[in-house]
Amino acid sequence: MKRRQFIKTAGIGAAGVAIAAPAIAQSAPEIKWRLTSSFPKSLDTLYGTAETFAKAVAEATDNKFQIQCFAAGEVVPALQALDAVQNNTVECCHTALYYFWGKDPTFAFGTTVPFGMNARQQDAWFYHGGGNDLINEFLKDYNAVAFPGGNTGTQMGGWFRKEIKSPKDLDGLKMRVGGFAGAVLTKLGVVPQLIAAGDIYPALEKGTIDAAEWVGPYDDEKLGFNKVAPYYYFPGWWEGSAALHFLFNQQKLAELPKTYQSVVRTAAAMANKDMQAKYDAVNPAALKRLVAAGAQLKPFTQDTMEACYKAANEVYTETSAKNEKFKKMHDAYMAFRNDQYLWWQVAEYNYDNFMIRARARG
Amino acid sequence: MKRRQFIKTAGIGAAGVAIAAPAIAQSAPEIKWRLTSSFPKSLDTLYGTAETFAKAVAEATDNKFQIQCFAAGEVVPALQALDAVQNNTVECCHTALYYFWGKDPTFAFGTTVPFGMNARQQDAWFYHGGGNDLINEFLKDYNAVAFPGGNTGTQMGGWFRKEIKSPKDLDGLKMRVGGFAGAVLTKLGVVPQLIAAGDIYPALEKGTIDAAEWVGPYDDEKLGFNKVAPYYYFPGWWEGSAALHFLFNQQKLAELPKTYQSVVRTAAAMANKDMQAKYDAVNPAALKRLVAAGAQLKPFTQDTMEACYKAANEVYTETSAKNEKFKKMHDAYMAFRNDQYLWWQVAEYNYDNFMIRARARG
Repeated sequence: MKRRQFIKTAGIGAAGVAIAAPAIAQSAPEIKWRLTSSFPKSLDTLYGTAETFAKAVAEATDNKFQIQCFAAGEVVPALQALDAVQNNTVECCHTALYYFWGKDPTFAFGTTVPFGMNARQQDAWFYHGGGNDLINEFLKDYNAVAFPGGNTGTQMGGWFRKEIKSPKDLDGLKMRVGGFAGAVLTKLGVVPQLIAAGDIYPALEKGTIDAAEWVGPYDDEKLGFNKVAPYYYFPGWWEGSAALHFLFNQQKLAELPKTYQSVVRTAAAMANKDMQAKYDAVNPAALKRLVAAGAQLKPFTQDTMEACYKAANEVYTETSAKNEKFKKMHDAYMAFRNDQYLWWQVAEYNYDNFMIRARARG
Repeated sequence: MKRRQFIKTAGIGAAGVAIAAPAIAQSAPEIKWRLTSSFPKSLDTLYGTAETFAKAVAEATDNKFQIQCFAAGEVVPALQALDAVQNNTVECCHTALYYFWGKDPTFAFGTTVPFGMNARQQDAWFYHGGGNDLINEFLKDYNAVAFPGGNTGTQMGGWFRKEIKSPKDLDGLKMRVGGFAGAVLTKLGVVPQLIAAGDIYPALEKGTIDAAEWVGPYDDEKLGFNKVAPYYYFPGWWEGSAALHFLFNQQKLAELPKTYQSVVRTAAAMANKDMQAKYDAVNPAALKRLVAAGAQLKPFTQDTMEACYKAANEVYTETSAKNEKFKKMHDAYMAFRNDQYLWWQVAEYNYDNFMIRARARG
């Protein structure tokens, strides 16, 4: 069976891969897998989503299919999760595909890109807009198959030691920033730094960096950034949403009984929904605590947003010109995004607009 | 085991109900259930979500647990789905809880209420804000257990034969409207009509009614409303989102092996995510077609929205005063909603705002 065919049929309603006669031992075998997470256990929304997934898989199979989860660094470091799956060091991982944009910037579309889709739109693209098929076609070269596995929603723009009053204030700024955003911020004079979660606080405290973004109120509060950088900017235009994925070694996934393949896919979709719900539930209280502790909420100015938007479009044009895979994914993604916002601006946005103003009046 | 305990432990990580020794025949028995949907097959986003759920359950159990789906009217009419589950005519159904607000207005919070939460917020409340536990505590009296099972996102405000230029234009209007919204619209002089999907078009064409709301572009286009009522208003303030549920007869669910209980819960969460993604994917093109065919998109005026908001709050106060269950659910729901919009207005809303304006400029 060709790889493309496998991807298209691996899920719900799949014919599945060739499996021998349906003896009980074969249709429900005992299997133990390892999953490496790109996140530390302390970040429970991120790391916890892998545990939620693994628990659902174990329960659905009467504990016959067990996936043991390891935090970043326990088996391999956070940013080697893809390599570990590709080489079958582990059978699967839970990660953000944009961590691997250094291998190929096309990876970024799996998580998010600057001025990309919001969380619901990104899932619409994955599940019913052909997005996840495109991601998996691209991942063939990495011996991996991906299912969406969580989202953060729109992230914050991060913590700054000084105010950003215009795009010029970004010039020369040393900033911790994840994913493909670094390529855009470079155009505005930012010196992007990729620093793991645990090392950001001391770097910001010492002034080795001037700014740092991570996720949003709940996670940022845990990392303590408000104590060393008072200005908390929004929105994180490079992460209008951020999708995680469960990645599977393609041979290992294909060898599973079709029952287990379906269990894995369904559990991933459940975990995808669950992570967003958890972030949405815990962020408001964290935001209140941060503001009470002195964090100064600031929107990026309109001219700063415009300058970043222009820089992002330049990067897309330049990268598309030299990378065919990137161009194909970019064009599909942006066409879908533009249609999504055509509809979003009507009912959804106007409803939120009214509710926000009604709430503000009390 | 007490009912409350069962609800709290029925899901992921549950100890499960008492099951006899783990002989193979008992841990993975062959079971056939019937599900009655409150929707016709022609509305594929709504009806199809039950099929998506049932397929995932069958695949996860190697076809041992099969749930056959029936469209509204095949076993019982759309609005008798709850009764059918309560009386064990069928083991489960797929429905909108607000259809049953005539039994008790508290049902409305399971789907949505006027000026309620948007879809992501509603799921945050269900899964991580205690909302689904509250719903299931309430459903004890109906012998049912509910898991969230789909959402439409913010709906449109419906189709009107005449323009609504101020709240006064609502006075005397005969309007097809679902759920608890009728109680609010009555305060503004609307005469609400509950009419099943298939009967709305002729009523609107003949002028028996002056306006009708259903869901949004994709479904409304199928029902053809644009041909008989040109003004298409937004947002549907009575449905900032609309959640569906899978409802289970509580004894039948408790009798399932714990493996199947977990499969059901995980499949429901997957279907919940899947329905929203499908609506988001198909609505933009439908909206374009409707506008090309002459539909006139109109926002409700600010004074109309304000008058409706005031009327809704009056209804909440009045209903809370005479219904303890309603008051308990209302207070929990509204506290959660207010915190949700405190956070939503920061990153998420500002991001969408910029993206919508950037798109409009081209």
